[in-house]
Amino acid sequence: MNFASDNVTGAAPEVMEALVEANAGTQRSYGNDDYTARLDGVFSKLFEREVAVCPVATGTAANALATAMLTPPYGAMYCHEESHVYLEECGAPELFAGGAKLMPVPGEHGRMDLDHLFAAIGHIRPGFVHIAKPSAISLTQAVESGVLYPLADVRRVGDFCREKGLGFHMDGARFANALATLGCSPAELTWKAGVDVLSFGGTKNGCLAVDAVVLFDPDRREELLYRRKRTGHLWSKTRFLAVQLLASIEDGRWLRWAAHANAMAARLSEGLAAIPGIDLVHPVEGNEIFATMPVAVMDAMEAAGVGFNRWALATEPTVRFVTAFGTDPADIDRVIEIASEAMAKAA
Amino acid sequence: MNFASDNVTGAAPEVMEALVEANAGTQRSYGNDDYTARLDGVFSKLFEREVAVCPVATGTAANALATAMLTPPYGAMYCHEESHVYLEECGAPELFAGGAKLMPVPGEHGRMDLDHLFAAIGHIRPGFVHIAKPSAISLTQAVESGVLYPLADVRRVGDFCREKGLGFHMDGARFANALATLGCSPAELTWKAGVDVLSFGGTKNGCLAVDAVVLFDPDRREELLYRRKRTGHLWSKTRFLAVQLLASIEDGRWLRWAAHANAMAARLSEGLAAIPGIDLVHPVEGNEIFATMPVAVMDAMEAAGVGFNRWALATEPTVRFVTAFGTDPADIDRVIEIASEAMAKAA
Amino acid sequence: MNFASDNVTGAAPEVMEALVEANAGTQRSYGNDDYTARLDGVFSKLFEREVAVCPVATGTAANALATAMLTPPYGAMYCHEESHVYLEECGAPELFAGGAKLMPVPGEHGRMDLDHLFAAIGHIRPGFVHIAKPSAISLTQAVESGVLYPLADVRRVGDFCREKGLGFHMDGARFANALATLGCSPAELTWKAGVDVLSFGGTKNGCLAVDAVVLFDPDRREELLYRRKRTGHLWSKTRFLAVQLLASIEDGRWLRWAAHANAMAARLSEGLAAIPGIDLVHPVEGNEIFATMPVAVMDAMEAAGVGFNRWALATEPTVRFVTAFGTDPADIDRVIEIASEAMAKAA
Amino acid sequence: MNFASDNVTGAAPEVMEALVEANAGTQRSYGNDDYTARLDGVFSKLFEREVAVCPVATGTAANALATAMLTPPYGAMYCHEESHVYLEECGAPELFAGGAKLMPVPGEHGRMDLDHLFAAIGHIRPGFVHIAKPSAISLTQAVESGVLYPLADVRRVGDFCREKGLGFHMDGARFANALATLGCSPAELTWKAGVDVLSFGGTKNGCLAVDAVVLFDPDRREELLYRRKRTGHLWSKTRFLAVQLLASIEDGRWLRWAAHANAMAARLSEGLAAIPGIDLVHPVEGNEIFATMPVAVMDAMEAAGVGFNRWALATEPTVRFVTAFGTDPADIDRVIEIASEAMAKAA
Repeated sequence: MNFASDNVTGAAPEVMEALVEANAGTQRSYGNDDYTARLDGVFSKLFEREVAVCPVATGTAANALATAMLTPPYGAMYCHEESHVYLEECGAPELFAGGAKLMPVPGEHGRMDLDHLFAAIGHIRPGFVHIAKPSAISLTQAVESGVLYPLADVRRVGDFCREKGLGFHMDGARFANALATLGCSPAELTWKAGVDVLSFGGTKNGCLAVDAVVLFDPDRREELLYRRKRTGHLWSKTRFLAVQLLASIEDGRWLRWAAHANAMAARLSEGLAAIPGIDLVHPVEGNEIFATMPVAVMDAMEAAGVGFNRWALATEPTVRFVTAFGTDPADIDRVIEIASEAMAKAA
Repeated sequence: MNFASDNVTGAAPEVMEALVEANAGTQRSYGNDDYTARLDGVFSKLFEREVAVCPVATGTAANALATAMLTPPYGAMYCHEESHVYLEECGAPELFAGGAKLMPVPGEHGRMDLDHLFAAIGHIRPGFVHIAKPSAISLTQAVESGVLYPLADVRRVGDFCREKGLGFHMDGARFANALATLGCSPAELTWKAGVDVLSFGGTKNGCLAVDAVVLFDPDRREELLYRRKRTGHLWSKTRFLAVQLLASIEDGRWLRWAAHANAMAARLSEGLAAIPGIDLVHPVEGNEIFATMPVAVMDAMEAAGVGFNRWALATEPTVRFVTAFGTDPADIDRVIEIASEAMAKAA
Repeated sequence: MNFASDNVTGAAPEVMEALVEANAGTQRSYGNDDYTARLDGVFSKLFEREVAVCPVATGTAANALATAMLTPPYGAMYCHEESHVYLEECGAPELFAGGAKLMPVPGEHGRMDLDHLFAAIGHIRPGFVHIAKPSAISLTQAVESGVLYPLADVRRVGDFCREKGLGFHMDGARFANALATLGCSPAELTWKAGVDVLSFGGTKNGCLAVDAVVLFDPDRREELLYRRKRTGHLWSKTRFLAVQLLASIEDGRWLRWAAHANAMAARLSEGLAAIPGIDLVHPVEGNEIFATMPVAVMDAMEAAGVGFNRWALATEPTVRFVTAFGTDPADIDRVIEIASEAMAKAA
Repeated sequence: MNFASDNVTGAAPEVMEALVEANAGTQRSYGNDDYTARLDGVFSKLFEREVAVCPVATGTAANALATAMLTPPYGAMYCHEESHVYLEECGAPELFAGGAKLMPVPGEHGRMDLDHLFAAIGHIRPGFVHIAKPSAISLTQAVESGVLYPLADVRRVGDFCREKGLGFHMDGARFANALATLGCSPAELTWKAGVDVLSFGGTKNGCLAVDAVVLFDPDRREELLYRRKRTGHLWSKTRFLAVQLLASIEDGRWLRWAAHANAMAARLSEGLAAIPGIDLVHPVEGNEIFATMPVAVMDAMEAAGVGFNRWALATEPTVRFVTAFGTDPADIDRVIEIASEAMAKAA
């Protein structure tokens, strides 16, 4: 029972089977294989328009490439001050974008305060070279705290970007979880709302190691491919990246997996929230749960074999649980039971 | 029958089985898993000293990280003018090293002319800030042309590096092929000869997607890990990188695979060289064969289903064949037969 | 009467004369001239220890070079969220440091809240590669708002840096103004308090175009000189940078100039503060004054030929006045008079 | 008598006077002054079309900014293998262009072999991401060896760039010397021949410290200004850069200065070449002379107070003399006399 992250699981069986199958025979290397050849088509259908897709092995790479596509080296990308792209990529976006700046924006629950964001950018005089040129906004959907931006807010950001000539990046490491809850289409949540580049998460949603940069302006594909190569992210055997995406998208699996993870998170969060002394830190709208609880309860849960994350940066004792495509409902119920008993003892 | 590259194959069955097996259960993410924990030990035993190992998914990443470990941004790394690191990484080493320079060195068969190399560096006055500071030498072993540096030459480079205070990188994308031919130990070919950082190739030798940076000064591990993260090469599910290396090293498989590939290359090159009108361009000491032949022969071979690479940069019509861990000797013999017949017709 | 910035003035007559004098005859180029040869000695005497000095033409260059000396590309330098280095260098420090991050720290009057700063760094687990490695702290002295850090606070930062293994940079674009007010020695305000690298400002203090990187570890001089060259800041006729510094330091001029500027700022701020309806935004401890006043008063002052800066980023109507080495006391009195009359009319 | 470089002189008297004059009074900072305001107009007139001009203090900065304007980080700029931009900027162009590559091109006398250049670029398949994308060509005029590219060759490069979609940079650190010899107009030697960006040299031609980036597509001015700022090359007191250019261009001084320097070089080279035992290494078409001579002659000249440069990289004992705007013909004659006497003794 390990809920420390959606990264502690392996790949879904369907993905692993697809990898094994793709291993047979030879294929042209460096993305000229039969699997990669199908990617653009599959994603274009998924997003209801022509897109260019570039698979890479990590979310960091996808985010950093996306940043570089939207931010010149003398520019700035605005993002939440606690977002993964700002805080937990060890400067990869800055590196890939040639030394560009990421500007932190405050806001509750990990969501940017849009009024604050728009004002911060609006105050900067165009052509004022002392301040890095506002060039892009990055919005994480679902947010790392487990909440979502309402579709209307995504559109507000998109409209602002159009008006100001800014690029719009969506960090969708948990894009599927957002879709599963919002119930809108991939197109609606992205380019129809003004998104230019999407980091499409696979690794956290049933894949072994693949995320994709989805470019809604396919004319810029060549630049993206050059950038992927020079950051060391072009695999010689790219088929093994492509096939993971193909297997997860086939037959809508990716959305079912995410919906399952969300459902498990809902079940767990409801169970925990019902225990006096345990409080949810954020609304639970995706597959992540942050909750405060006595350290004694944490200890008891760990002693009972429940894996989770003690959240170091929080001021109160806080845990994070993340559910995944394969989370067993029985495990969820067991965790709630353990927590409940531990709290009873602690009280 | 595809000999276009050692990248056109998939992974060896043993590697794929190990991946499937490693997929079971949960593991701590970001390299804190049970598989990765074994890597340093396995490699330290292999190299007969303590080393730090950092697995990544591509050879480009391994080379670029190695460059960054040895070359400050105001420095220069010297390498062959046709080497992969100089010519075919799209500037990844330069990016990872913060804008450092790679300085091209001429030499026959893709091997640096060592006298030229030493003189070029020797002419630069220490502290002469106009010229990027000579900081490292990168030597490819086996060379992309299919030849090797004799062990004595590797040692000469190592001695020069020690004397001048330079770092010494070995691009070992085909390190196993070199070892298999030279018959020396991994230690002898690397740190005992003065190598500081090795790019250890797995992808071209039976793996799905893994190469490793091997650092012979393990005290610098932390820097390497930071650099890996900020270039997007830290996998959340690192176990899937580590297990490939473990499976290939276990029981000496990697060396057997490379020896087989080399033997197949020898068989093929001998067969081709015996055909009048076909000439080897370089000695065949590893798993790569470059040969000149009439275009009509190339056409006939392709028509017969033989895959290979037409070498665009050569002045005469040239092909490249690369053999791999799983090359079937019967295929080799068939290729020779086809070439022989085609040449007879062409003549 | 232009108080828009300390940059609107030219150079002090003594500096201009020295430039004219240095123009005679030939000198070895690229810093091998007689003037540059004296710099290290003059600064070593000034700072009571051996230092390495590297003159450049702009404060941005000095700050960015200093950042690069203290922050690896995977590292982070902490600084105030409104500091020049963070906000108004258009990312130069990030570029020079190879894509490193600058992390913003809040605090009143442009001074970092030291408790907040220490806690932010203290929370990060050493070796946690997801977050850019805390590597340096940059403190501006005098602060851009016109206030100072007390010497005790500089020492607190220095002690923290020593304890945590961090580099300590002081942005001293207005270093002389700070010294003039604090009355301590250059040594006390810098290396004796733990500072590793100082940006020593000349341009704002009587020079034409020169700031200097002062390195308190002279063994790292070579690296600094390479970095200067590769950022395009090595002048072929370096004598013209060096002579400005020599002329301003000679006979203590630089401190007299700064003391005069500070005195003029004190005189102006006292005069303005005495006018009902005009309020100082920050204490005036150096040569900068920020004040709120009705827009009508601003308009009237401008109409009367008084130059100043309308501070765009402020929420209330705010002006900035900056005094300089050559500010005429009569002008100060005239400005106060104009402001007073304008306010009387506006009321 | 110092002929070591055109950098050993100070500024021409007219330039120094203009600097002194510009020092009076206050001016808006950061390029918003009255002098800088005139630059675009003066240069647009000089080049017979609208241009954007960006003055910086060094030729390295001008070249590196120009490179960045024409070469994306995943691109390559082709230049001569011994050119200043390739060899003696310590990687500044690579840094400013975000890690782009400079690709060395051979050719006699420091001039690129154009057939070789065109073939090298022509061999690379468009979109082949392994090789840095050919993006620009940089041609030095006058060449560092003292020769020139004929105008027809400049046009050939321009035509090739247009055909292939490449940018065309001219390193004109000695642009005036080239013009003075070729007798064509600034427009003919640059944009009419296809040049996109010119590094316009001032420092080597009578200025104190100023070179300029001249952009023939003024619509890209904003990007250039951002790039200048983030590399630390925006002076707060930009008037002092601008006025140097204004003073040197006024009344055609810059061309007269260059013509004088060229005439002095011609006089010196003819004198030296007439001495048996002294041989010119390159044709002398600008203000630089490279000559082989016995070391004893070099020693004697130095003993007699003649300054020059012993050329370390040459295989035979070689000296470089550079003449300048203020070279005294009597000194030239004296050098020839000394050399002649020394040779007589040495023989």
